[in-house]
Amino acid sequence: MELTQEHDLLQRLADLKVKSSVLEVQEVDREAMTKKTVQLINAQDDNITRLTCDPIKILDQAGFEADEISESPVDFDSVMQELNDRLVRAGVIPGHPLFLGFIPSGQGTYPSALGGFLPAAFNTYSVIHLESPAAVQMENRLIQWVADLFGYPAGHAGNISSGGSLATLTALAVSRDSRRLKAAHFHRCVIYCSEFTHYAVQKGLGAVGMREAVLRKTPVDTSFKMTAAALEKQIKEDKEAGLLPFLVVATVGTTLTGSVDPVDDIADVCERHQLWLHVDAAYGGFFALCDDMKQLFVGVERSDSIVVNPHKGLFISSGVGVLVVKDGGKLQQTCSLQQTPSVFEGMQFFSAEHLSPCELSFELTRSFRGAQMWLPLKVFGVGVFRAALEEKLLLARYFYRKLKETGEFELPLEPELSVVLFRATAPPGVDINNFNQQLLNDLNSDGKVFMTPAVLGDQYYLRVCILCFRTHMEHMDLCFSLIREKRGHLWGSFQSNA
Amino acid sequence: MELTQEHDLLQRLADLKVKSSVLEVQEVDREAMTKKTVQLINAQDDNITRLTCDPIKILDQAGFEADEISESPVDFDSVMQELNDRLVRAGVIPGHPLFLGFIPSGQGTYPSALGGFLPAAFNTYSVIHLESPAAVQMENRLIQWVADLFGYPAGHAGNISSGGSLATLTALAVSRDSRRLKAAHFHRCVIYCSEFTHYAVQKGLGAVGMREAVLRKTPVDTSFKMTAAALEKQIKEDKEAGLLPFLVVATVGTTLTGSVDPVDDIADVCERHQLWLHVDAAYGGFFALCDDMKQLFVGVERSDSIVVNPHKGLFISSGVGVLVVKDGGKLQQTCSLQQTPSVFEGMQFFSAEHLSPCELSFELTRSFRGAQMWLPLKVFGVGVFRAALEEKLLLARYFYRKLKETGEFELPLEPELSVVLFRATAPPGVDINNFNQQLLNDLNSDGKVFMTPAVLGDQYYLRVCILCFRTHMEHMDLCFSLIREKRGHLWGSFQSNA
Repeated sequence: MELTQEHDLLQRLADLKVKSSVLEVQEVDREAMTKKTVQLINAQDDNITRLTCDPIKILDQAGFEADEISESPVDFDSVMQELNDRLVRAGVIPGHPLFLGFIPSGQGTYPSALGGFLPAAFNTYSVIHLESPAAVQMENRLIQWVADLFGYPAGHAGNISSGGSLATLTALAVSRDSRRLKAAHFHRCVIYCSEFTHYAVQKGLGAVGMREAVLRKTPVDTSFKMTAAALEKQIKEDKEAGLLPFLVVATVGTTLTGSVDPVDDIADVCERHQLWLHVDAAYGGFFALCDDMKQLFVGVERSDSIVVNPHKGLFISSGVGVLVVKDGGKLQQTCSLQQTPSVFEGMQFFSAEHLSPCELSFELTRSFRGAQMWLPLKVFGVGVFRAALEEKLLLARYFYRKLKETGEFELPLEPELSVVLFRATAPPGVDINNFNQQLLNDLNSDGKVFMTPAVLGDQYYLRVCILCFRTHMEHMDLCFSLIREKRGHLWGSFQSNA
Repeated sequence: MELTQEHDLLQRLADLKVKSSVLEVQEVDREAMTKKTVQLINAQDDNITRLTCDPIKILDQAGFEADEISESPVDFDSVMQELNDRLVRAGVIPGHPLFLGFIPSGQGTYPSALGGFLPAAFNTYSVIHLESPAAVQMENRLIQWVADLFGYPAGHAGNISSGGSLATLTALAVSRDSRRLKAAHFHRCVIYCSEFTHYAVQKGLGAVGMREAVLRKTPVDTSFKMTAAALEKQIKEDKEAGLLPFLVVATVGTTLTGSVDPVDDIADVCERHQLWLHVDAAYGGFFALCDDMKQLFVGVERSDSIVVNPHKGLFISSGVGVLVVKDGGKLQQTCSLQQTPSVFEGMQFFSAEHLSPCELSFELTRSFRGAQMWLPLKVFGVGVFRAALEEKLLLARYFYRKLKETGEFELPLEPELSVVLFRATAPPGVDINNFNQQLLNDLNSDGKVFMTPAVLGDQYYLRVCILCFRTHMEHMDLCFSLIREKRGHLWGSFQSNA
């Protein structure tokens, strides 16, 4: 690229402009590309919404090696065809009404998808107020709405992360810093949770440098909830042993059992011992929209930080979690640079009036995630979400009752939220764990439904999580029939072998 | 919600199904919604691509308070109108060809935007191989492609993060863990960088629990590059003082000056002292695609980890960073759970054959970011990016020469990549820093161009970063004319005041 002659340089620049101008896709091509994309989306949704749809899960995952990245362009239709053949035709379809296997990570209502599209096209830079004041204010408004939902007073601050793990990691760092803990004491620090606390906490501790800290799993009651008394006993013992209790993680809706820890009682303990109370409401948080559920959320307003996942309870596309810290200054202290390196000082276009997201999270540039949450909330209104969440709660009770009435299943827990645990009684002489493991395999084998297990103590249960906006009564009826049918077959096969 | 009667429950479920079914937007509405969205995008791009476009930056940011979240739905067109009025009509337009102020965080080529749309609509769950094998394999293929670009051998592993900060945070954690550093020793640990190393490193250190560690800024040469000799001297002194040197961050393309640290020399030092070498190529990395630039990347293949931002050098929409760690096992060791809590064991659908992204990053659920990178690379082919990047390099040289030829500007550094620093000479008796601060204000005031400063030592420079795919020779000509014009006016005003 030694271009000594001015003429050479101008010629080369003219050539390169022509070559690189391909990146500016023309309007007519955009229309064709968009049309093709929407066709794929519609075809997929057609599949899903028909009850006689394609399997929820294709088990044969061979032959899905991704294509190479090549020097030359590939026709857009071929690229889309490849995506269609591969993305859609293998794996699990998360938007399916019988996706009951994990707490669904969003089902992608259409406006949410457009909320992924529009800012990606505008390339909205949503992390500095100066650059995109509207995006920042929209995200702040969403955080305010979440804070209001849980009764946080003014003075809070938060951020919109990629999901619960990153939000939890940040909450851990803030709680760590709020105590001005020295690294030399990390190994003496104690974090309290239960066996059912999500492993995002353990993962986050590794990230924030506290792998050596003590992660204390306090006993749960028969509903798999933390007990405040056991927690307090443990804290006292730890203090006497010279350890440094500093953080309690309470869960509003454990992913495995749907249990809600007694937050108010735990808040009493935290208050007495001056511990940071973090509430993991990633799964259960948005059930606070349902009037009848208010009692489950008593005490959440007393916590120091909350994580809630719109891509779960608001049925939106994956990649949107919200962290709110009651004392916003503490979040800023952890995330903002205490001292900007002097050479970058001229680059800090921050305003005192409007805090920017990059001062309140560990991320600098990132996508304008708020749009995926903003569009559906505006377009549908909060009332629809309230109704959909109430429906999920009632579906769980409905399904629980139906299973119970048959007398063929053991149900360890009346559902508080939208998770139902059950296991089939086993034929005489057959190990109940093996029987249910086999039952789960049979249920998942033909791809009509997707469920996961929960191993409680040494007991193996099946687990159904109802949180897809497409799941209605008829789907739970179908799920129920499948379970009874497979159970019947399995029971029969054991008897014919006996 | 006390529903004792079976009949009540069924009736309530039927009602709620009707209410919540609104979330399943029908095909005809989707078409209308998509059309409206694309109209907005096209209108914005029309604005941008005309040279007589709307200002790049609207300074009056008052009155952009975001609307409330309301109980009732808002008509889609009104929501979009609000977005249009607010997002587009305030702040800085990052896709503008005269957005020269920051290393552009992506300009959002259209296929990249579709790559934000499609997976959000499919709600592709890209972090566990079992759930979405094709998405995982596509992301792994992209990581492989990046690793190949920098000459990493087999055995590496990586992840696609939201951007450079999260990728850097993760690299710091991996380097920390690779040395099995105890928290008790964090305050004795030393990280080496230069004054020009991006503050993401300082921010990340706070996140990973190492705020107490020593962040040593070693001297730079006259091109603002780290010097291996000064680095080694400092390491020796620190070792003698009983400190624990463990990590060096070298930068391939500092954001402030576009300088490339001498990675090969630094790698020698790291090898001799057994330090982790992390290469921050967030801005400069993809220039490795240009054949003539190979010499700048010598030694990068000897590093232990690399961060590169596709949303910079690949001109794609914000929110896509790539981390690659040479010894993939180390990344997994830091990010994967060492021991899964027993109750969650049944939930771990991991395969030994295919590592899942959630085992190689701190994030669990997140969006399928790979699509924003995959689509443009496939649709345009690598060749176009190569041409576009070469164009940016030549534009920087072209612009540098033009400024230099006038004799009216001081240029402290011949551009190596696509950043150009300059300042106007000041009229006699006028402080050169004040003069240039005023010049920058004047340039940014009418929104025709957007630039930022760089304060080097106590000298104030203006800074132009060329990395938008829309920036061509005519834009640099326009930028040049604006600078000369404003400089002339400013000079005149000082003389008339004198």
